Amino acid sequence: MSSGDAERAGVAIAIVGATGLVGRTFLSVLAERRFPVGRLSLFASPRSAGQTVEFAGRSYRVEALDAADPAGFDLALFSAGAQVSRLHAPRFTAAGALVVYNSSAFRMEPGVPLAVPEVNPESLALLSRSAAGGWGRIVAVPNCSTIQLVMVLKPLHAAAGLARVTVATYQSAAGAGQSGLHELETETRRVLDGDAPAAEVFAHPLAFEALPHVGVFGDDGVTSEEQKIIDETRKILGLSDLPVSATCVRVPVRVGHSEAVWVETERALDPEAARACLARQPGVVVRDDPARAVYPLAREAAGTDPVYVGRIRRDPARAQGLILWVVADNVRKGAALNAVQIAERLLLLSEPAARAARESAERAKA
Amino acid sequence: MSSGDAERAGVAIAIVGATGLVGRTFLSVLAERRFPVGRLSLFASPRSAGQTVEFAGRSYRVEALDAADPAGFDLALFSAGAQVSRLHAPRFTAAGALVVYNSSAFRMEPGVPLAVPEVNPESLALLSRSAAGGWGRIVAVPNCSTIQLVMVLKPLHAAAGLARVTVATYQSAAGAGQSGLHELETETRRVLDGDAPAAEVFAHPLAFEALPHVGVFGDDGVTSEEQKIIDETRKILGLSDLPVSATCVRVPVRVGHSEAVWVETERALDPEAARACLARQPGVVVRDDPARAVYPLAREAAGTDPVYVGRIRRDPARAQGLILWVVADNVRKGAALNAVQIAERLLLLSEPAARAARESAERAKA
Repeated sequence: MSSGDAERAGVAIAIVGATGLVGRTFLSVLAERRFPVGRLSLFASPRSAGQTVEFAGRSYRVEALDAADPAGFDLALFSAGAQVSRLHAPRFTAAGALVVYNSSAFRMEPGVPLAVPEVNPESLALLSRSAAGGWGRIVAVPNCSTIQLVMVLKPLHAAAGLARVTVATYQSAAGAGQSGLHELETETRRVLDGDAPAAEVFAHPLAFEALPHVGVFGDDGVTSEEQKIIDETRKILGLSDLPVSATCVRVPVRVGHSEAVWVETERALDPEAARACLARQPGVVVRDDPARAVYPLAREAAGTDPVYVGRIRRDPARAQGLILWVVADNVRKGAALNAVQIAERLLLLSEPAARAARESAERAKA
Repeated sequence: MSSGDAERAGVAIAIVGATGLVGRTFLSVLAERRFPVGRLSLFASPRSAGQTVEFAGRSYRVEALDAADPAGFDLALFSAGAQVSRLHAPRFTAAGALVVYNSSAFRMEPGVPLAVPEVNPESLALLSRSAAGGWGRIVAVPNCSTIQLVMVLKPLHAAAGLARVTVATYQSAAGAGQSGLHELETETRRVLDGDAPAAEVFAHPLAFEALPHVGVFGDDGVTSEEQKIIDETRKILGLSDLPVSATCVRVPVRVGHSEAVWVETERALDPEAARACLARQPGVVVRDDPARAVYPLAREAAGTDPVYVGRIRRDPARAQGLILWVVADNVRKGAALNAVQIAERLLLLSEPAARAARESAERAKA
């Protein structure tokens, strides 16, 4: 599709995993941002097929992904597991769609952009130059914990050079999707009622527990989630040797991941200067007034777009170290929003073109 | 009191803050360990005075601390705020009691032992040598987060020398006492019922939130809780220059603090060797079989005595670094149990003497 087509009829979009937490948030984000949606098809597993989902005042019937005809889409937004992504994403790219997907499949493949638009837009510029005619290409959305981390690392790297990064995460149940959220709420109620909690989604009951187990364990005792933070941070920042260390922990929070981050820099950077350069980073909001109990909180981040940073202070244990507290809505900036931002960059090339496309799409629906 | 007296009549004990979470746990721990309790008096604030508390089949009326006569006690176990401790602990020591207390008052004073019996028993040996006849002395129980940390740092230091310690905490509501626990449960139920949560004990609602605010903020952006971990770890280990860095976070867990710990050592120590030396540390239990989802959990630690450690692995970002996950019941080993262990060391000098004292106390009650 050319941007001229988008202006006339809107972007033809397939949403894969449309009934999930991220899938539904794709739709909210598209609507909020007045993305010029043309034809829209929703796909999910056979179990969820047949459900109806509302979008912009219309009902859409969810179709089974296995039977999907991938032809005719400009954009496919995927929120499915790695296995499903590996199987179906190539079908949509072969049919000419730009596939933007949330899963670990392909993320670390050298030819696949792993993009956070405010951090490494150059990865997308490369892609759009190589795409003549159809897109036929895929872009990976990084892991949620990585996205909010690199959003604050990027400006600090620009200011003082990153030497080492250490992170402890406080990850919400929403990171495990609707079933994770449901299990947290159900089992929390059970505990409050004096009953023993159970676990199906999580390895142990998450209600009133800090669970140091996100993803699966490797032989070295590192979880897949921790390894993603290490590998993806390096790829996104283009720092293949950056020392990164992580402990990932699921906590009984509904939506919004928090991170305690230690950053060592090559050159001195005092907290005031760090605060100033973080405040200039698009997509980052500094909330840092501890005397008034102002710092980022998951409850306040949930449902909003920015990555929040606060508790910016000197590391007393390191000569050139800073400590930060970083919070974001893991379903939005950590997944759906970041994916839509990628699509905006690639399909809505300029602001006037984007505006024209939106207006055209609205006329077509009216 | 001499140990001979203890053998005859049991130890005369005052419990200050007897109606609180730690105060009640003092009583449970004394009973479980068959501590030879003689005369027992319970003190609390005027608000709680008049309540009755059960111990060993008898009812005790709680008295107002302000009106307390401190005479005639061998031991006073304090669980009160720093201000109350500063005011009343000297009254009991002046009257000849050994005061073992949980609060930040006096902890950092050079003459005051800050004791974790399995870690720095030498601090207590010093005290008992100087105590001729009456005790007239105080011993401080460290901050709960510090106790479980030094329990694992000590054997690692002995094996390989500590070079730097970094810790992110996941602290339970019980650290803020019964009112903290109550607020977490009440407000969690409120959120589940669709209402907005409120906060009185915590700075913001803790229900479904990770709150990077434990204690009060200093001008440098470090909280009092974080500063305690730094200062107390150094004092207990006798390493006054050890670089220590902490971010302390309250999480919606009822009882049991968890900690993600990064340890840098002077000499190489592989995870297998670390596991072996941790397993030999009295009071520490290694739970580390991630392939079977075995690692320390707050729910399993709550109500038990050990400090649990797991997820012991190499730090991929540092040449001589280890990462650990450390969990303990913050009300027991983090407070009441540690205090009673100190009293046992100082008042029940040898195992046979302790046993005789227990039996004598039981006969006296029969």
